[in-house]
Amino acid sequence: MAIRIAVDAMGGDNAPLEIIKGVIIALELHDDLNIVLVGNEARIEEIFKELDEEINPERLSIVHAEQVVGMDESPKKALAEKPDASITVSMNLLNEKKADALVSAGNTGAVILAAAQNLPIIPGIERTGLAAIYPVAKFYRKGKGFALMLDVGATIHCTSRQLVHFAFMGSYYVSRVLDIENPNVALLNIGEEETKGGEVLVKAYRYLKEAKDITFIGNIEGKDIPKGIADVVVTEGFVGNVVLKMLEGVGDVAKDMGRYAFKQKLTWKIGLAFLRSGVKRLHVKTDYSEYGGAPILGFEKLVIKAHGRSTAKAISNAINVAKRSAEEDVSSHIADSIKRFNAMHQTDLMEV
Amino acid sequence: MAIRIAVDAMGGDNAPLEIIKGVIIALELHDDLNIVLVGNEARIEEIFKELDEEINPERLSIVHAEQVVGMDESPKKALAEKPDASITVSMNLLNEKKADALVSAGNTGAVILAAAQNLPIIPGIERTGLAAIYPVAKFYRKGKGFALMLDVGATIHCTSRQLVHFAFMGSYYVSRVLDIENPNVALLNIGEEETKGGEVLVKAYRYLKEAKDITFIGNIEGKDIPKGIADVVVTEGFVGNVVLKMLEGVGDVAKDMGRYAFKQKLTWKIGLAFLRSGVKRLHVKTDYSEYGGAPILGFEKLVIKAHGRSTAKAISNAINVAKRSAEEDVSSHIADSIKRFNAMHQTDLMEV
Repeated sequence: MAIRIAVDAMGGDNAPLEIIKGVIIALELHDDLNIVLVGNEARIEEIFKELDEEINPERLSIVHAEQVVGMDESPKKALAEKPDASITVSMNLLNEKKADALVSAGNTGAVILAAAQNLPIIPGIERTGLAAIYPVAKFYRKGKGFALMLDVGATIHCTSRQLVHFAFMGSYYVSRVLDIENPNVALLNIGEEETKGGEVLVKAYRYLKEAKDITFIGNIEGKDIPKGIADVVVTEGFVGNVVLKMLEGVGDVAKDMGRYAFKQKLTWKIGLAFLRSGVKRLHVKTDYSEYGGAPILGFEKLVIKAHGRSTAKAISNAINVAKRSAEEDVSSHIADSIKRFNAMHQTDLMEV
Repeated sequence: MAIRIAVDAMGGDNAPLEIIKGVIIALELHDDLNIVLVGNEARIEEIFKELDEEINPERLSIVHAEQVVGMDESPKKALAEKPDASITVSMNLLNEKKADALVSAGNTGAVILAAAQNLPIIPGIERTGLAAIYPVAKFYRKGKGFALMLDVGATIHCTSRQLVHFAFMGSYYVSRVLDIENPNVALLNIGEEETKGGEVLVKAYRYLKEAKDITFIGNIEGKDIPKGIADVVVTEGFVGNVVLKMLEGVGDVAKDMGRYAFKQKLTWKIGLAFLRSGVKRLHVKTDYSEYGGAPILGFEKLVIKAHGRSTAKAISNAINVAKRSAEEDVSSHIADSIKRFNAMHQTDLMEV
């Protein structure tokens, strides 16, 4: 049976046009894929007409949603005031088993909150996590050029048990959906020693060391993040959010610095021209939109949060990742791991 | 009266040679400076002889210390087992008012712990903080090309009151010692809104908004760190440590990437050659050793932790900064600010 992916047609800076284009690409690429587009039906049909594309009702259906949460709206307020927002309607489709996974490029906070309000959590999981894929260097350790960090903003502080659950979820996602075999899993800490970072991290370290389902390599420090020492970096949401946004900021500064240098001196201009092919290659290496955006892990159905600036290609990649995740039944596997882990440690006190 | 700076002659990767060279430079640069060198007396005298330098007893004295804490030793264990370590002897000099400030390039953990074990804390301060100076872009906002972040590792988690104290200490240090007038002070958070980041940060925001002695610009996010939006970034030690080490890691990756690119293609080689002057200028811009290393703030006497790899120039800069700090009597000013703040808010509950 074909996998059914719900796509929030209205979320994102380039919605609905680029979202719909992305859906069309994905449907062309995958025969065993059906799409449910959620949003303003008239507007969606109009775009298909403008693009001169047929709607094949066997593979593509439209579910009307009257409202949209804007990118800058307060999630809590917007969801309360807009019961018929495309993101809420999308979540309901997952909940009613009318779709197997969801892709949205909309307001991040609203996507997370709508999921929390509507979707069942995998049994045994206490907190869901927003995971982000970020580019890493490839020359320190043979790798794919990206790593996954979680949580990056769904939580603020966590217990050791919650961190352990993040480790399982991240490891499973990366190995099953992003094809990294036996991924290295690490705790982000202020030192490599097992005793560092306070009670929560010390406890999480001890539990992960004993876990059999994952390849735990211990603590890593901030300097190891861009080097790709770990494929899965586990941390609480506050730290993950700051770290991830700082990586973006460093990228912005580098770009702006290049632009600034280009204006300064003829020799620099010539130098940058010679380096163009290298910079291009670098860009491809760090174009992590091909990994489909940020998965929200811990719900029974996978939600992929594509970047707000997603183009058609990024949306198509996100749909592909959502499809892989549903095919591999990632949630069931995570549920099994968590169940085994919780059973092993149910008599322990894991209150921190 | 001349300012007296104690210098740990034995701490650091290049000790004692580069430390002593740095002391000689500093003494030449500043007529109103006296130095107390702490370490193995015979070894120190030998180096002066090798360098063919006179010891002027009116400006330079040597205090013998039999032991040294190694760069990789466990601070707690080393300090317990080595009561006559140069760092401990140095702290005692401060404590006995035989020196006005201290510079050490030794084991960071040992310097912090030795300070905690020996030095009195400024009245009203609950936790001391390790502050780090890091390079920032200059084209977003006219600035000096660096900013101060604290805490970066002396604490793990903090209360709102402790964060407020960090803000005062950082602001005073930056304005008095590093010549940034009315420095922008910000809280590092996961969003700009006052309500973000959990109870501790929300409370710290509210208190800082009301504080009259500092220029509080609100919350900044990770992406703003390398852009230099704030001159003083306030955060708890865990986050600060991860962030700072990640900045170092990104620098390492960029350097290694340049080296890798250089080997790949002739056009890249030519491009990099043309860019050499730009890279050099960038290096100067980010050579923050000229700002003298990381101050440990909150003790009655200033301790400057110079980088472990410090050269003579870096040590001389650190001595200069320590001297400035003693001249400006930074600790008394911090004490006054804290006193006023604590008095204003003593009836409030600030337990988080």
